[in-house]
Amino acid sequence: VNPCILFASVYDKPDEWRDALRALVPSLDFRVYPDVQQAEDIEAALVWRHPLGMVKQLPNLKLVINLGAGVNHIFDDPDLPPDLTVARLVDPGQTAQISAYVAQHVLAMHRQMPELRRAQNESRWNYIHPMPASECRVGLLGLGNLGRASAELLGRLGFSLFGWSRTQRELAGVSCHSGVDGLQQVLSQSDILVCLLPLTPSTTDLLDARAFARMPKGAAFINAGRGATVVEGDLLAALDSGHIRHAVLDVFRQEPLPAEHRFWQHPAVTVTPHNAAVAEARSSAPQVIDNLMRLRDGRPFINVVDRSAGY
Amino acid sequence: VNPCILFASVYDKPDEWRDALRALVPSLDFRVYPDVQQAEDIEAALVWRHPLGMVKQLPNLKLVINLGAGVNHIFDDPDLPPDLTVARLVDPGQTAQISAYVAQHVLAMHRQMPELRRAQNESRWNYIHPMPASECRVGLLGLGNLGRASAELLGRLGFSLFGWSRTQRELAGVSCHSGVDGLQQVLSQSDILVCLLPLTPSTTDLLDARAFARMPKGAAFINAGRGATVVEGDLLAALDSGHIRHAVLDVFRQEPLPAEHRFWQHPAVTVTPHNAAVAEARSSAPQVIDNLMRLRDGRPFINVVDRSAGY
Repeated sequence: VNPCILFASVYDKPDEWRDALRALVPSLDFRVYPDVQQAEDIEAALVWRHPLGMVKQLPNLKLVINLGAGVNHIFDDPDLPPDLTVARLVDPGQTAQISAYVAQHVLAMHRQMPELRRAQNESRWNYIHPMPASECRVGLLGLGNLGRASAELLGRLGFSLFGWSRTQRELAGVSCHSGVDGLQQVLSQSDILVCLLPLTPSTTDLLDARAFARMPKGAAFINAGRGATVVEGDLLAALDSGHIRHAVLDVFRQEPLPAEHRFWQHPAVTVTPHNAAVAEARSSAPQVIDNLMRLRDGRPFINVVDRSAGY
Repeated sequence: VNPCILFASVYDKPDEWRDALRALVPSLDFRVYPDVQQAEDIEAALVWRHPLGMVKQLPNLKLVINLGAGVNHIFDDPDLPPDLTVARLVDPGQTAQISAYVAQHVLAMHRQMPELRRAQNESRWNYIHPMPASECRVGLLGLGNLGRASAELLGRLGFSLFGWSRTQRELAGVSCHSGVDGLQQVLSQSDILVCLLPLTPSTTDLLDARAFARMPKGAAFINAGRGATVVEGDLLAALDSGHIRHAVLDVFRQEPLPAEHRFWQHPAVTVTPHNAAVAEARSSAPQVIDNLMRLRDGRPFINVVDRSAGY
């Protein structure tokens, strides 16, 4: 018999996920939180920012699948059993969305859209001679699935690419670095810095006043990773001084971003509401079903999160 | 002996072009308008919006090379001898810039950036669930070098593509149309319409009230072709009614766009200062030199404009 799965996200549409999963396994027992029914039936959960207290209700939970790439919210749950398997989605649709988001905003920074918008507000024709992309250096922090896909797209657009990751990577067309010294190297050569890092103890507060000061004067910053990677007050100071000319932020230490936060009305900040990418039901359904079959058959899971690394 | 070339553009840097051309032919006689010296020496001209009266000063002019793709400004010169050869640049650098501009703004429209900016102005977290690119239909008007490169990039980003051109084309992954009926087909299926058409008698005023009415309600419009393809009052009416939700415009009937023009302050218009793309000296120099050698040797020119078609 197939395991029963509980869906818990107020950000995603349960019907889409139910339909996509049942298209593969018509008899799937798919329940939507908080309607758990016989809680002891539930062996797997498909979650995004699940409510605290939920895990405690599920005595037979064996697998939690995160509806996305960043799993830090799951580990924030103090009730999470230490031996519970956590997997994440590695969704080609989500990867495409993230790399498109990165490309869109790197291009907007490269083409000086904030400056052009200021000129437009003043009804002023401000001809800016476009520079070849090859003369613009883009630094990518994080070279996992999302970083690699972004690098490939930015490479096709002709940008000069630098990359940084915890463990050293080799990527065609990207000058790859790792470690503390490597980070300094990438920061100091990034006309546009893109952060796609997961949130772990070692990435928390990684981008602080010293990091921003390392970047070239007038550099731009794009964060589509996690908010707590950035010391927000330090970023604001770097924006106020003009050392960082613009920041495009999809993620924040507190989400939704509080109405009184300075980011909202800062002229050098573009806020997007943590919607750079979401897992798509149709393209993700096969790997969810795959993990449910592995659970049924006792085989090893795929896309398992390394809890010691935190991603 | 190599032909002498006259450079005439206030939008481009003569030094860059001289250096790029002399890197290939060190002895090249390169003059910059209005310093023509012995005007009878000059056999070729490299121009962008050359001043009226210039051509009359050059009794031995045999070739005009346009510093870009759109040649309509050259044909606006009443002194242009009917048998003078006009060539244009087909520059890979410029093609890359145009397709990047198109991708940037198609993505911005797809991701509803104007709506997100409005929300930001109100310090309002407006979560918009991102839609897969495949569910967004992009129509491309013009399938020459620039249109084809744009289609390729948009295809990689996953958009559903429709294309229209004067003569029927076949492009992988693009539903191609031509003729009057074909235009209606493309307009009616374009969630985002991108115009890259050259300005000719048959494209002048092509996009009028009827054309905009054909588009789906809430469609977006991007013009990186020529301003006079659009009846600007009709576009403004379509934006005022909300039938067209946003327009991104790089080109205008009058450039620079006059300070009093309604486009500047219209909340549903993004103005860029005709800088979507420029020919790059380094990547274009070989084809300019090629045409100069052809002039010297009496061989047929490359990238010649068909004066009856107007492009």
